[in-house]
Amino acid sequence: MSNKEPPGVAPSCWSPLVGQPLSPEHASEISRVFKALGDPVRLRLLSLIASHAGGEACVCDLTEVFDLSGPTISHHLKVLREAELIIGERRGTWIHYRVVPQRLASLADLLIPTTAEAVAS
Amino acid sequence: MSNKEPPGVAPSCWSPLVGQPLSPEHASEISRVFKALGDPVRLRLLSLIASHAGGEACVCDLTEVFDLSGPTISHHLKVLREAELIIGERRGTWIHYRVVPQRLASLADLLIPTTAEAVAS
Repeated sequence: MSNKEPPGVAPSCWSPLVGQPLSPEHASEISRVFKALGDPVRLRLLSLIASHAGGEACVCDLTEVFDLSGPTISHHLKVLREAELIIGERRGTWIHYRVVPQRLASLADLLIPTTAEAVAS
Repeated sequence: MSNKEPPGVAPSCWSPLVGQPLSPEHASEISRVFKALGDPVRLRLLSLIASHAGGEACVCDLTEVFDLSGPTISHHLKVLREAELIIGERRGTWIHYRVVPQRLASLADLLIPTTAEAVAS
């Protein structure tokens, strides 16, 4: 397990949806991230991690919430990792996950161009 | 063709992802909207509509951009409409689409809680 981020278009390269028509290349990259959010289990996992004490959650904190197998949870976590929405770090027995706030901010900024300024201020 | 909005959880009922764990019901509703964005053609359609002169686009403006059949474009527009991301209004021969800014702001606010305040100010 590595927390190295997978390759992808840097968030700062994304233009707001409302500014000018998205290029096919950016649309492809961005749709991959929205697709990762387009699943109720993954949204709940992301929310559980983001709202957990200290902003990170052990995989052991996550599996107990769902009536799903460990491999299924691991699959969903992998999709979130590949979309660069979370990163994982192994400490001892367990992998600990935290969200990537800048990734969420970049997505929000795509939807509403004022967000980055609001976050920065 | 009606521009009546389909039933769904009102955007104002959505709590930020980072505030507290999403309920299964809200996660299901919200994932449906992200799933609608999780396709490159739909993202490009949304961006084309949002960035078109006057903030709306005729379906005739949209079909010419893609190397896709009319029914395929119509299907993608239907998914965006059902997710309440766009609304359509028939005027004469053509249906004209525009985005629902509050819907985009609600999604952005899920990702970054400060967005609604920024948009309102």
